[in-house]
Amino acid sequence: MGFSYLILMVTIATAFASPINNQIHLLKPHSGSAGYKHSNLNCLSWRLAVETDNLQDWTVVPQECADYVGHYMLGKQYRQDCDYVAAEAYKYAKGLNLTGDGKDVWVFDIDETTLSNLPYYALDTVAFGAIPYNATLFDEWVTKAAAPAIPGNLKLYKQLVRLGFKIVFLSGTREAFEQPRIRNLKAVGYTQWEKLILKGDNDHGNAVEYKSSKRKALEEAGYRIRGNIGDQWSDLLGSNAGDRTFKVPDPMYYIG
Amino acid sequence: MGFSYLILMVTIATAFASPINNQIHLLKPHSGSAGYKHSNLNCLSWRLAVETDNLQDWTVVPQECADYVGHYMLGKQYRQDCDYVAAEAYKYAKGLNLTGDGKDVWVFDIDETTLSNLPYYALDTVAFGAIPYNATLFDEWVTKAAAPAIPGNLKLYKQLVRLGFKIVFLSGTREAFEQPRIRNLKAVGYTQWEKLILKGDNDHGNAVEYKSSKRKALEEAGYRIRGNIGDQWSDLLGSNAGDRTFKVPDPMYYIG
Repeated sequence: MGFSYLILMVTIATAFASPINNQIHLLKPHSGSAGYKHSNLNCLSWRLAVETDNLQDWTVVPQECADYVGHYMLGKQYRQDCDYVAAEAYKYAKGLNLTGDGKDVWVFDIDETTLSNLPYYALDTVAFGAIPYNATLFDEWVTKAAAPAIPGNLKLYKQLVRLGFKIVFLSGTREAFEQPRIRNLKAVGYTQWEKLILKGDNDHGNAVEYKSSKRKALEEAGYRIRGNIGDQWSDLLGSNAGDRTFKVPDPMYYIG
Repeated sequence: MGFSYLILMVTIATAFASPINNQIHLLKPHSGSAGYKHSNLNCLSWRLAVETDNLQDWTVVPQECADYVGHYMLGKQYRQDCDYVAAEAYKYAKGLNLTGDGKDVWVFDIDETTLSNLPYYALDTVAFGAIPYNATLFDEWVTKAAAPAIPGNLKLYKQLVRLGFKIVFLSGTREAFEQPRIRNLKAVGYTQWEKLILKGDNDHGNAVEYKSSKRKALEEAGYRIRGNIGDQWSDLLGSNAGDRTFKVPDPMYYIG
């Protein structure tokens, strides 16, 4: 784990040899002095509301929580929170009886579940989600195929493969990015899968509708979704959600 | 808010003039010295997993997190987390168009949503949920009808009544406790409701099944469940869950 963490930090520092701004967003202390604005918003309460789906349809991290989110994401707690979820998922998975017909599936979302975009989100131009989403810049980042794995979930993936689950990656990424995504997944250790489902030009509707329809198609094809893990509630709600779902932390953005 | 907080603390100190042990559980520092056991469990990760329903079917707060949970529950953060959820619920509620036919309903769970059992859970014999549930002692506590309101949710209740919502209290409490529950609700400010639904001798099944069947009956009677708030995921999952649900924090116990 220490090694993967180092890899992530090095990746943050080196991922951008590119024309786009590569300065890492500076974390400022919340002193309240020197004109730095304090507000009544409690960032811990904000984050808990995000993680429990009490806060919906938000577009950016509140300005006054940008540093809090940055400290959380770059610090140990985010890593430990991810590891804890992955460990619970594994505990559940290893208690299941697999039929051995190759139809027991575990669904993984990709961004902030399988791969970490933290090197991108840590940029000064992104500020851990406190600056509005810029599709052009994010697409450039995806094209680089340079996202590290989320260590706990890579470990879970390997454990599930060993238990005999078939892995389905189900992502809102557009099909145009299939090649860099495949390169990225393989480069960091996700070397095999049953299906990699990306968003086609004919896929409409919001994230819940899109993901539900793809999961429905999976089950109609005879697969059984035994588990489903994602960082957005829209990965986990709707129809055919799976026998059990696991919510990975993500206080940087919301997809409804 | 300061005043209600004071009320809560005074209630904790005075609620028990009874033969049962009334010592408040002492919060010990996590020094790791003097034989005090450290573990690898990160209590923040544990609590996040509880709040996001990643951890299920747990029976007691882990021993090493009893003090953490105690500090959280008695400190400001729990109160602020509750207030934040209530404020989000109100924001959502005031954006709704009510038909004015008296059928727009908001469902409140009772324990740890409407009323706080913190004076009971803070007892040395309960240790914030780190000691296994004792039905006899808990029933004695319910009979006292001495639970304070959760301030943010009492405020939400009053706001919803003012907006024209009909309030339905839906609780797993048994009907045998109807009278103390009514006394307790009224004493702390919940003065009116459309229905108070408690668990009858003929109500079977787990919490999700019980609450789903009661909500289904409500909707079959013509009510529209516009909102639903509870501290357990079993309040919010299942059928007829409501147009939107809100999860109140509760790291002290799990009801599946």
